[in-house]
Amino acid sequence: YLGASVVHSCEHGKSMAEASRISEARRDAVFARWVIFSPARSRRPTDLKSHGPANPSPGPDDGAPKPSCPFCLGRESECAPEIFRVPAPDESLPWRIRVIENLFPALRREAAPPAPEDEEPVGAGECAVRGFGFHDVVIETPHHEVRLWDLDAEGVRDVLLAYARRVQQLAEHPAVKYVQVFKNQGASAGASMAHSHSQMLGTPFVPPSVTSRLNCMKEVFERSGKCSLCAVVSKDILVSETHNFSAFVPFAASYPFEIWIVPRQHSSYFHETDQDKVLDLAGLLKSMLQKLCKQLNDPPFNYMIHSAPFGLSSSCLPYTHWFLQIVPQLSVIGGFEMGSGCHINPVFPEDAAKILREIDSS
Amino acid sequence: YLGASVVHSCEHGKSMAEASRISEARRDAVFARWVIFSPARSRRPTDLKSHGPANPSPGPDDGAPKPSCPFCLGRESECAPEIFRVPAPDESLPWRIRVIENLFPALRREAAPPAPEDEEPVGAGECAVRGFGFHDVVIETPHHEVRLWDLDAEGVRDVLLAYARRVQQLAEHPAVKYVQVFKNQGASAGASMAHSHSQMLGTPFVPPSVTSRLNCMKEVFERSGKCSLCAVVSKDILVSETHNFSAFVPFAASYPFEIWIVPRQHSSYFHETDQDKVLDLAGLLKSMLQKLCKQLNDPPFNYMIHSAPFGLSSSCLPYTHWFLQIVPQLSVIGGFEMGSGCHINPVFPEDAAKILREIDSS
Ligand SMILES: Nc1ncnc2c1ncn2[C@@H]1O[C@H](COP(=O)(O)OP(=O)(O)O[C@H]2O[C@H](CO)[C@@H](O)[C@H](O)[C@H]2O)[C@@H](O)[C@H]1O
Ligand SMILES: Nc1ncnc2c1ncn2[C@@H]1O[C@H](COP(=O)(O)OP(=O)(O)O[C@H]2O[C@H](CO)[C@@H](O)[C@H](O)[C@H]2O)[C@@H](O)[C@H]1O
Repeated sequence: YLGASVVHSCEHGKSMAEASRISEARRDAVFARWVIFSPARSRRPTDLKSHGPANPSPGPDDGAPKPSCPFCLGRESECAPEIFRVPAPDESLPWRIRVIENLFPALRREAAPPAPEDEEPVGAGECAVRGFGFHDVVIETPHHEVRLWDLDAEGVRDVLLAYARRVQQLAEHPAVKYVQVFKNQGASAGASMAHSHSQMLGTPFVPPSVTSRLNCMKEVFERSGKCSLCAVVSKDILVSETHNFSAFVPFAASYPFEIWIVPRQHSSYFHETDQDKVLDLAGLLKSMLQKLCKQLNDPPFNYMIHSAPFGLSSSCLPYTHWFLQIVPQLSVIGGFEMGSGCHINPVFPEDAAKILREIDSS
Repeated sequence: YLGASVVHSCEHGKSMAEASRISEARRDAVFARWVIFSPARSRRPTDLKSHGPANPSPGPDDGAPKPSCPFCLGRESECAPEIFRVPAPDESLPWRIRVIENLFPALRREAAPPAPEDEEPVGAGECAVRGFGFHDVVIETPHHEVRLWDLDAEGVRDVLLAYARRVQQLAEHPAVKYVQVFKNQGASAGASMAHSHSQMLGTPFVPPSVTSRLNCMKEVFERSGKCSLCAVVSKDILVSETHNFSAFVPFAASYPFEIWIVPRQHSSYFHETDQDKVLDLAGLLKSMLQKLCKQLNDPPFNYMIHSAPFGLSSSCLPYTHWFLQIVPQLSVIGGFEMGSGCHINPVFPEDAAKILREIDSS
């Protein structure tokens, strides 16, 4: 059951979606996940309180500087240690971005890195390693009320460059196998802190979705000789394109209004993107977030950067292609999705893309 | 950030969990998923409105018969067609359980089943098939206010037998590859209808999590000669055991207080379980739901039956072992989990199991 704005969007796309396509299942070529598209599902009734976003993201008006927020300017001493800061260009402020340690880390830098034999299966093929890893927070702005897409393109670029710089540092650590960069915006998207920030977790293992993504892309490459993400994006799912990046609703999007931003030139690692391209990416990311914010009434959302694990053999590089995935949180996952790994999406990608193309992003 | 009751549970388990184990990563032998256990995470602060369950399940008192509920006794005509009904033993009521078509199906029985050539990849290895399939609802009781675990063991057994009977019917259809049986209880677990019910979806493809589960269990079998789920359950994660089933918190539980109920004797298909064993399962399921309800204050939850796809070759049977997974919905998934497929669980399985063992389930 989706919020009013999405139902509205479905009505929008109705002539296309419901007339010609009742429902359809699609499997993508990146994760090999099946998704069921079923526009009629958005019309089902409910006698339970809405389980759409319980807590929409706080808007700017709701966000007067909070004296108790440790991420705000002047409260640096309440945070876990700083890793580095990005100065404001005109030095009017002591910093513009801070990368700090997470005070409640899921994995700990102090723990001893796992030894190779630790990864041997115990019991019935299970495996346990000490909780070694790096869990950092990127404070995107000193101001409590500013959202990422309120920054200018240079401001967003600097946030992305801060990610890249920190990923580069973590890539040097021999025991870190992967870094997951992600952002939670709004309580229903998991955020516990309102002040605009993102996080990254450097793990001593390659996470499950990364393994399955690589397996899927490898299989496609072996069969077709092509990288799944190098193909030209079909016009009907494209939202916007720049010189270096395409933003589109993926052919088998798991979530309504999900957007992928993909470099048009083959590239395995996000953190190797050069500065000019990062500015290009920043402009596109800002514009996509503005579109989602307008169309879906400031929805909670997550974004995730999907890059390659470190130390990949060169034979894997031709089929690994990094991208950024944006997922507005509009519905609740139910038992079907949890059990099967197959999502039910009431909005066809072509319909979502058409709506997103048509919204002005300024 | 977890609700008060879980934080309470964590405090409970503190001496064990936090003293001896700071944080740990584990990979299971069924899905090959990594999970990070980090008790300290449950103490992080928040300045956003709670994103714990926004809508706890309605309790019995909240559930006076709703004149507008189509699942209630006497309103059968407002439902999609009935597939079969289970009569009340004493015939005091026209039915005790009804299996009906879902009025807003994600997949449609009227659609033409996909032809084999439809599954050929299109474009960059993607694939699309018509939305053929079966989407049914099991109304577990004629009474709006009764919850599944309010039924006696025979009542719960009959619900499970209704699942099995419908799965058997769907297994006959040559184009149905898998049936996902699941239950959503409470709005935060995705339920749109309050009246106690479950659902099943028969799909024309093998869903992604089923494929990865089979791949993982196959690998364990090939390496060790053993089925991942035939191993004796270690005492510290066991919650309860009957003659035929074990209920335990899995070694690498993705969710706090997640419970698996597994047949002790190797068995690939849920729907082939004989009646006596189903009664045994029903008693254990009822008791686990009662325990969760008591410990976690009537949480929203999902359960899913993980069985084998139809028409599996006999060489796969030795490593496929069905089970029922119960997941209370206590926290929100964030960008880390969405991106990496790796969950962060603040409650160690040993601590959750100890707490669940100690709660009286009557
Ligand atoms: N003074 C301080 N100094 C430094 N760091 C501080 C701090 N005060 C708080 N923090 C940290 O700041 C982070 C804020 O992160 P978010 O709001 O994005 O979500 P959080 O990690 O809480 O959980 C969400 O994301 C994770 C990962 O996806 C999910 O596991 C979880 O369920 C979901 O709620 C927290 O991780 C917290 O530990
Ligand atoms: N008169 C009638 N006759 C027959 N059927 C009727 C009916 N009125 C309503 N229904 C059906 O009854 C079902 C009730 O199901 P649930 O409450 O378990 O969750 P729902 O399927 O809505 O969505 C949850 O589960 C799905 C699957 O996990 C997720 O995709 C979704 O996001 C989540 O909210 C609905 O599917 C609805 O279509």
